Amino acid sequence: MTAKNNTEVIIDGNKYTLSGYESEEYLQKVSSYINGKIAEYRKDPAYKKMNFDAQKAMLELNIADEYFKTKKRADELEAEVGDKDRQLYDIKHELVTERLNNQENEKEIIRLKNEANEYQKEIIRLETRMTDMDNSY
Amino acid sequence: MTAKNNTEVIIDGNKYTLSGYESEEYLQKVSSYINGKIAEYRKDPAYKKMNFDAQKAMLELNIADEYFKTKKRADELEAEVGDKDRQLYDIKHELVTERLNNQENEKEIIRLKNEANEYQKEIIRLETRMTDMDNSY
Repeated sequence: MTAKNNTEVIIDGNKYTLSGYESEEYLQKVSSYINGKIAEYRKDPAYKKMNFDAQKAMLELNIADEYFKTKKRADELEAEVGDKDRQLYDIKHELVTERLNNQENEKEIIRLKNEANEYQKEIIRLETRMTDMDNSY
Repeated sequence: MTAKNNTEVIIDGNKYTLSGYESEEYLQKVSSYINGKIAEYRKDPAYKKMNFDAQKAMLELNIADEYFKTKKRADELEAEVGDKDRQLYDIKHELVTERLNNQENEKEIIRLKNEANEYQKEIIRLETRMTDMDNSY
């Protein structure tokens, strides 16, 4: 288990100490993401005119929107993984059937080749006997 | 194209009018999610003691954390879909090869059966001739 650690981050110019199991690197990434959004919003004159509550609500809505869109993508991908798993299951089953057919066919080929070999021997035996008969009469 | 619409939402007790292409239903879902988090935080005495900036920073970090965790899941699932696509490609290729082998083997079985048939006819022909020879001498 990872030890609990304290990480100092800056959010919107204020310093906070976060205590938890997340890595310093991860928490800085998350903080940077939030600060990046705030910096982006500050370029918008309409945002600057809003009161602090409204600015925060916009930011919260924006991040939550990204979360929901990403969640939708993740859910769709999860369904896709399930679908591909079913396809793989079916096609593996088909492959096994096809391989078994092939094994049966290969056995049948060997059996037919042996049979042909026996017929050829029988033909030679009959031809030899006929030659002998021709010679003896 | 969907028409731009105005939706009234309540975030943390304040009413905002959001203008955009998102559906009312979606925006209410996103707002509910934020309000749910705020309600959850309010049960925590440590949160209540924080100033407003710190409370908002906690909330932003929490939503952004969910976003990053979901993004990680989506990225992993995307890689999994790619991996399964490669597996499907390979196994389909194997299946085609196996089917072609089977077709070749089936042709070979028909050829060998015809050959056996010809040998049998030849044997009967030779046996008939031998019987004829026996009878004539």
